Amino acid sequence: MTSPADSAAPSAKTDHPVDVDVAAVTEAFALLTAGELVAFARLADDAAHAPELRARITLSRIAASDLEPLEGLREHVRAVGIEPDLFDDRTWQFRETLTEIDARTTPRDWWERLVRTYIGYGVFADLEREVVAGLSGESGRIARDALADGSLADVVVAMLRPVIETDPQLRARLALWGRRVVGEALGVASRLLHSRPELARLVGIPVGQPGAAEALASVLGRLTAEHARRMRRLDLTA
Amino acid sequence: MTSPADSAAPSAKTDHPVDVDVAAVTEAFALLTAGELVAFARLADDAAHAPELRARITLSRIAASDLEPLEGLREHVRAVGIEPDLFDDRTWQFRETLTEIDARTTPRDWWERLVRTYIGYGVFADLEREVVAGLSGESGRIARDALADGSLADVVVAMLRPVIETDPQLRARLALWGRRVVGEALGVASRLLHSRPELARLVGIPVGQPGAAEALASVLGRLTAEHARRMRRLDLTA
Repeated sequence: MTSPADSAAPSAKTDHPVDVDVAAVTEAFALLTAGELVAFARLADDAAHAPELRARITLSRIAASDLEPLEGLREHVRAVGIEPDLFDDRTWQFRETLTEIDARTTPRDWWERLVRTYIGYGVFADLEREVVAGLSGESGRIARDALADGSLADVVVAMLRPVIETDPQLRARLALWGRRVVGEALGVASRLLHSRPELARLVGIPVGQPGAAEALASVLGRLTAEHARRMRRLDLTA
Repeated sequence: MTSPADSAAPSAKTDHPVDVDVAAVTEAFALLTAGELVAFARLADDAAHAPELRARITLSRIAASDLEPLEGLREHVRAVGIEPDLFDDRTWQFRETLTEIDARTTPRDWWERLVRTYIGYGVFADLEREVVAGLSGESGRIARDALADGSLADVVVAMLRPVIETDPQLRARLALWGRRVVGEALGVASRLLHSRPELARLVGIPVGQPGAAEALASVLGRLTAEHARRMRRLDLTA
């Protein structure tokens, strides 16, 4: 990872330690905030489509837990002197990009819906981890605490794996669907890193310098490998 | 309120105090559980439609807080020996009835959406209060704790009232829309009380006896009066 410190744009109104890279924290924290809000909305919608009560309650609860880190993120944003309106604007724009997966894929049934959420959640959590790894100090600590705990993946695997194992036709269809969805998810990740130099720097891409394309490819490669591992948990080929 | 004790159907497998009316607790707690889940889904969906970030965060948070009483309700259901599958079935059926408002009304914009949620939430919270008032002892205490705290109403009034006061055309449209929505909401309340004798008894209706129709009309009258009070808070006529 390269240090993002060289791109710092110190805010005029701060009393934060001088080593905080305000521009990088703005990007990363806005991405995390948008991610929590979009994950909340998607899981709540999944919950509303659940075919039975226990699944509905479980997914509703995981959705609610996605909101828990919001306040801590916002407090830190305030503490390091980021302009609240600027932060809100950035968050709102990220929200738009992050919902592209949902707009571009329409699940045909409950199983496709679960697979879509599992994949989108997974790829996005991996991207967040990469971004957060580029933050140092207090900002890095708070951001790491805000990352998803992986309980959704366990829940989805427990719901899906038994049906996948008894229905070869469904299994083939979901494997195909998974490739479709991950294409969209990686597209979103790639667009984010292309359009937001601060994010790209946080994941270690030497923006505008030799090796930038290779570094981006390497990030996407890691996201793809993690995706394949997740699909194996479902007994599906990526 | 009449005591519902005469309709008790003691469960075979309980160690709960003999004065718990298992049938009444099943109905009331399933209604509350379904209500929390439906309110969560509706508010999460509203949040996803919010035109700006602060509204989205605020509504998402209120949605999440609607789930908080679920565990306490379920614990009590277990403690008094209600069959879990029976309880889940009942909850699932109530969920269907409660979402009828959403299925029958399609808001044309954000304001109509907010008004729909405000009215539906309000009428349903009033109905819940009526039902819970019929429960005694520990069951009554737990059920009362699970009731909504009214923070949604304050939030919606703060969002809506300024725009209503500056836009007479919107105000006329929302007053009309409010009458449409409350018709559906009262229809749901009425269907619930007609179809579920236990609920009807809990709100004090002498089911199958003289005066039942008058008692039902009186409940609906109270719900209507509370609705009118809520509309006045928005500066709208009911």
